[in-house]
Amino acid sequence: MRLMPGLCGLAASAFIAATFAVGARPSPREEIEAFNKHYLELHQKMDTAGVLALWAEDGVDLMPGEAPIIGKKAIVAWVEGVLKGIAGYKVTKEELEFHGIEVNGDWASEWATEHQVVEAPEGKPPIESYGKMALVLHREADGAWRVKQEMWNASPKP
Amino acid sequence: MRLMPGLCGLAASAFIAATFAVGARPSPREEIEAFNKHYLELHQKMDTAGVLALWAEDGVDLMPGEAPIIGKKAIVAWVEGVLKGIAGYKVTKEELEFHGIEVNGDWASEWATEHQVVEAPEGKPPIESYGKMALVLHREADGAWRVKQEMWNASPKP
Repeated sequence: MRLMPGLCGLAASAFIAATFAVGARPSPREEIEAFNKHYLELHQKMDTAGVLALWAEDGVDLMPGEAPIIGKKAIVAWVEGVLKGIAGYKVTKEELEFHGIEVNGDWASEWATEHQVVEAPEGKPPIESYGKMALVLHREADGAWRVKQEMWNASPKP
Repeated sequence: MRLMPGLCGLAASAFIAATFAVGARPSPREEIEAFNKHYLELHQKMDTAGVLALWAEDGVDLMPGEAPIIGKKAIVAWVEGVLKGIAGYKVTKEELEFHGIEVNGDWASEWATEHQVVEAPEGKPPIESYGKMALVLHREADGAWRVKQEMWNASPKP
């Protein structure tokens, strides 16, 4: 007879835990907001490997002055080339303000304004830049949101 | 008795018509493809009023070197300003090749490569340019797809 209240208590706990879990599960919009926060932090830390891990295998990067860069392999190669050209530079400020978040099923789109300050090596003046970014995200087979499409262009200083 | 076969014939015709209509109704992807064809034709004809009519009231235009242009009123004013600056120029070639079309419910996203040739006034040489475009489309309350977000940047000559 002692076992029954124990089991009931366990069942009640499980029920409460399950209810809490459902209540605590982030909405698709909250998932995108979490993605954006993580995406920004990776850029702030110049964690290139982390940023590249967020790309879908068949992602497309649409960068100014470049032909469309199609597929993660090509994107990795392009990013590595850019990094070689800016060796010694350090991101000291990275701000992204996201807008227009729309989530529909496993697809999401959004755009952001960007403000970046990069410290140059050898006493050169820092580089301050402003831009805009548009992202198309997709929830991949493993449940994680990844970048399917990215586009960027410059903005004037506000 | 004569009426019955007539009615049956009518019913059969109505059934066939309904079946045909369902069969002929374009899929969401076909709707976007029709939108793209129309969008391209308007650009080829320099039908600015037609292009602006395709914008959602709360659309956002993300043009290079510009701050985000938010809302149709601001977009119309910006386009009119650009047109004043290129009076006398004529689009003689406009090519858009769309890729990555994704439709989910009332939202769609896609990107395109662009090739444009513009004839300049007063014997100046024509201007040939290459670029990329990303669009987010939304099926508005009237059932028509409209542009919610557009971004553009330049591409090198292929």
